[in-house]
Amino acid sequence: MIHSFEPDKYYLSIGSHPPALKINSGDTVNTNTVDAGGFDKKGILVSGRGNPQTGPIYVEGACPGDVLAVRLNNIWPNRGHGFCRPKIASNVLEPGHDSRVTDLDTFDFLLDFDSNTARIENPSEGLTDLSVPIRPMIGCFGVAPDRGQAISTATSGPHGGNMDYRGFESGVTAYFPIFVDGALFHIGDGHAWQSDGEILGTGIEISMDVSFTLTVIPKIEIFWPRGQNEDFIFTAGNVRPLDEALQHSTSEMLRWLVNDYALSWPDANIMLGTYVQYDVGNVFDPAYTMICKIPKSVLPSASPGSLISQSA
Amino acid sequence: MIHSFEPDKYYLSIGSHPPALKINSGDTVNTNTVDAGGFDKKGILVSGRGNPQTGPIYVEGACPGDVLAVRLNNIWPNRGHGFCRPKIASNVLEPGHDSRVTDLDTFDFLLDFDSNTARIENPSEGLTDLSVPIRPMIGCFGVAPDRGQAISTATSGPHGGNMDYRGFESGVTAYFPIFVDGALFHIGDGHAWQSDGEILGTGIEISMDVSFTLTVIPKIEIFWPRGQNEDFIFTAGNVRPLDEALQHSTSEMLRWLVNDYALSWPDANIMLGTYVQYDVGNVFDPAYTMICKIPKSVLPSASPGSLISQSA
Amino acid sequence: MIHSFEPDKYYLSIGSHPPALKINSGDTVNTNTVDAGGFDKKGILVSGRGNPQTGPIYVEGACPGDVLAVRLNNIWPNRGHGFCRPKIASNVLEPGHDSRVTDLDTFDFLLDFDSNTARIENPSEGLTDLSVPIRPMIGCFGVAPDRGQAISTATSGPHGGNMDYRGFESGVTAYFPIFVDGALFHIGDGHAWQSDGEILGTGIEISMDVSFTLTVIPKIEIFWPRGQNEDFIFTAGNVRPLDEALQHSTSEMLRWLVNDYALSWPDANIMLGTYVQYDVGNVFDPAYTMICKIPKSVLPSASPGSLISQSA
Amino acid sequence: MIHSFEPDKYYLSIGSHPPALKINSGDTVNTNTVDAGGFDKKGILVSGRGNPQTGPIYVEGACPGDVLAVRLNNIWPNRGHGFCRPKIASNVLEPGHDSRVTDLDTFDFLLDFDSNTARIENPSEGLTDLSVPIRPMIGCFGVAPDRGQAISTATSGPHGGNMDYRGFESGVTAYFPIFVDGALFHIGDGHAWQSDGEILGTGIEISMDVSFTLTVIPKIEIFWPRGQNEDFIFTAGNVRPLDEALQHSTSEMLRWLVNDYALSWPDANIMLGTYVQYDVGNVFDPAYTMICKIPKSVLPSASPGSLISQSA
Repeated sequence: MIHSFEPDKYYLSIGSHPPALKINSGDTVNTNTVDAGGFDKKGILVSGRGNPQTGPIYVEGACPGDVLAVRLNNIWPNRGHGFCRPKIASNVLEPGHDSRVTDLDTFDFLLDFDSNTARIENPSEGLTDLSVPIRPMIGCFGVAPDRGQAISTATSGPHGGNMDYRGFESGVTAYFPIFVDGALFHIGDGHAWQSDGEILGTGIEISMDVSFTLTVIPKIEIFWPRGQNEDFIFTAGNVRPLDEALQHSTSEMLRWLVNDYALSWPDANIMLGTYVQYDVGNVFDPAYTMICKIPKSVLPSASPGSLISQSA
Repeated sequence: MIHSFEPDKYYLSIGSHPPALKINSGDTVNTNTVDAGGFDKKGILVSGRGNPQTGPIYVEGACPGDVLAVRLNNIWPNRGHGFCRPKIASNVLEPGHDSRVTDLDTFDFLLDFDSNTARIENPSEGLTDLSVPIRPMIGCFGVAPDRGQAISTATSGPHGGNMDYRGFESGVTAYFPIFVDGALFHIGDGHAWQSDGEILGTGIEISMDVSFTLTVIPKIEIFWPRGQNEDFIFTAGNVRPLDEALQHSTSEMLRWLVNDYALSWPDANIMLGTYVQYDVGNVFDPAYTMICKIPKSVLPSASPGSLISQSA
Repeated sequence: MIHSFEPDKYYLSIGSHPPALKINSGDTVNTNTVDAGGFDKKGILVSGRGNPQTGPIYVEGACPGDVLAVRLNNIWPNRGHGFCRPKIASNVLEPGHDSRVTDLDTFDFLLDFDSNTARIENPSEGLTDLSVPIRPMIGCFGVAPDRGQAISTATSGPHGGNMDYRGFESGVTAYFPIFVDGALFHIGDGHAWQSDGEILGTGIEISMDVSFTLTVIPKIEIFWPRGQNEDFIFTAGNVRPLDEALQHSTSEMLRWLVNDYALSWPDANIMLGTYVQYDVGNVFDPAYTMICKIPKSVLPSASPGSLISQSA
Repeated sequence: MIHSFEPDKYYLSIGSHPPALKINSGDTVNTNTVDAGGFDKKGILVSGRGNPQTGPIYVEGACPGDVLAVRLNNIWPNRGHGFCRPKIASNVLEPGHDSRVTDLDTFDFLLDFDSNTARIENPSEGLTDLSVPIRPMIGCFGVAPDRGQAISTATSGPHGGNMDYRGFESGVTAYFPIFVDGALFHIGDGHAWQSDGEILGTGIEISMDVSFTLTVIPKIEIFWPRGQNEDFIFTAGNVRPLDEALQHSTSEMLRWLVNDYALSWPDANIMLGTYVQYDVGNVFDPAYTMICKIPKSVLPSASPGSLISQSA
């Protein structure tokens, strides 16, 4: 079933807020998200700032201990301009290294949907040629955490949240561990473009039309967000420092290989050590995100009943 | 001028050891390296273990404050087998996560130069299909550090060393700050293949025939190793933790953009923030390596007299 | 005014839960806390496990931008036994270092209030002489965070929380930035004894009778919890890694010296650099705690109107 | 035997330099050290800057696999002034936090040996009352590392080096693992006073008269520097980040407890977890130093033949 949902309330934390919509497992939701500053597709301020979330969406039958599969069917900017910050964050430069940016006003990128590119509005002379492809991604999405928590949309964790990974784009399926009945899915913070690390503290921040399908996969234990696209399976570790984010994503992938691909532990060590690739999600937010991925082409077939076999 | 050099002594530290060869700036050296365990192309043990280095090579005219450009003309395995460790390092897994590998013996990959692929010798049943392309890289190379230091080839720093980055392959030019007269270049630790991070503590460890050209670029200040290939310029930060390695590589790239590409500081912030990509070099050695890179296609032309213009 | 408050509900997160008690600024509350596992003074399980909190207490007139001063008048175990974990946490040992503890059951300390010491119940032969003084402290306390967040009592942040610092004992005044109307103060997780770092993941976990006075100090900006005892003023940075916790506590102290003690920035640099002392709060929880402190004896008099002058 | 040794050459790295003096195990050496800037007791520049080392001293019979015990009999400033830096290091403040010190010139403390205190020469008005006790310590000392390395005196490691821990004072015995024949002991970088962390990048930097006794303890394996004073045994982890330094010092102490005090592994876990104290050595140098210590008063008697029993 397909639900068309028009949000009228947004949250600045991901938690056990009252459901805005109830759906069944396997249903698709077509809705929209405002930009990180709370502006909608008409440029009207409709929320507080800081990655306001559309939702939460309650999925019937979802229970703690299950996994929520989120297929991003299509995410696309629903307006022609997005904003960006002009200064590299101090925490990604050497201590005391001054980035020498004094004008901290955000600036806009203008999107050209014919050429699928975006350019700076009123660029300085040195940046007149700067043009990026429109490659929409979701910065912040996930499910309500445990213990009655509501976690700021500035940060991320095992429940997902503000991972700001450019790999969360149309066609990807993300997986989250479910902590509360109904899962309570949230989504927001679209970027028309973002490079590795989100080192400016922003991508091209924009409102989006989004379509996704939510499916409950029962009784599979995962500890951190996972995902797959056409070419890779991947895991996300969300924490500071980056070293520890890498540990979580690597451990989660090792568990995945053993559980879903019938590899022995020693074989999974060699398989992962031989083929692992890492992507730096974000190194700006309170929790950093490190992605661990492995090409599908090198993996054996997934086991029947596994996470990956239930959601391909 | 081309020098054919046959090493007969190897070093387990990079430092101001007696020069094994003296050359002029712009000369090419054809030589070879033993594997990380000290075995040569015939499989004979000729050195202590731990990334033994061929060299050092003294470059006439090289002075502290200059840069040494090292073009890797060709690096290629000179034998048909390389060894690998079977266990993912504890420091890249969650604390207390047991990788469940009990047999710590190294195993061999066999190289097939017809298909340019390598396979495990006597694989377990789960890994019979595992095959990787032969994609040779240099794990450890660099120049003598300052203060009379001699630094273990297990680790890396501003002088280069054991960066274990799979991007140091044929066709790449690497740049090192020069700390001592003659630069004193060292090279060793070839890998026939390595994925991101070197999380097994090895790639496919192998002896190599190597050809490189050493050129002195006078009076340009750099703080960390840099490099370029056909598509990217990149910088390397070599230190623990990974967060700090990322800081050094990012700061070094920001300086590079301002110095070589006539970008203002604010423009360089936006340019780098928009296009930056990160590669995880190694997360195994005493110093981790994080690579910061930016596509050449998006950069303006390099300034006359810049590092990049003198070495293209 | 003194309030005697008997809690009947406990929270596993610190957030904007319904107030359990409303008081005026300057009032004292006498109440009690259950142990980390949810057991009360009679050893009866009355809550879920994981540092259940008594409260929240709403302080009339408290507003975002104010500071809540919490004087711990008296905190004292209200039963004769507390539990402890037997294994040093993997994250404080070298990666792969096996602590060789296989029996993970908690064990009890028995408290002797005559001698004010505690001993292990049924100790192994090697630990028969182990005796610690009873030195009660509060592991987890703080105020509701912003953005509608509710943050797990397993962790800590600018709002306080599970700092597990042995310096939060009777006689100390702690200061928290106020994020929501009424401040919403929570308290729990008493320890009869704890060493630096809480490296076992517990102190001697025990239920407590607690008496504290809550005072609103209007319109003073602080960013992290602060405190004072008879001899020191101190600040707490609560985050991973420990390096970053140290950065926050040091920056917060530098700001404090300039704002409250009429020191110029250069003088405050030298003053802090000359006298700083660090205490490791905890290195077990999701956020680590590093304390930065400076002896009162070396400081000039506090300025009129300053945080310290309003709460001495 | 007591050796009076007058150095005439200093090293800026700790390594296998030619011995300046050869002694027997158990001998005492009376000598002196220049300050961190290379100035001697008369204020004359006699070395390059950066913690120049007196030595190395070759101890007959010392072999790799042994331990060198260094008793600091007496260390005392041999002149009346020492220098200090005025600015808190950027790496101990929040990223982007400007410490607002613009005059980076070093300043002097003047020592008054009658009152055993030191005061700033020509202090600003805010610091006229600042006075510290003279409490001399050694910033940098250790033994030659393995693999032919020579490691900068700016940093530290398993071999010791620039630990900048205020606990290395008169009366302390330090222990270093021996990596090369003769151990090759180096010493320098005296401070008349230093607080935790060396966050200004200096203590009160001064030349010293030093007396120490070097004793070889055969065939005991240690991995990191250790020490004891009247009240504590302690271990030093020297590496970045601070989290990892803490891991090394904690693991080293756990090993010590099991090896020297006949505690079972489980008992050692509880003993250490109950009583551990941490001191922050330095958080300025390329390697940070975290000290793990435990009071002697709570420990059982050391085993015969143990490290501690051979050197008490």
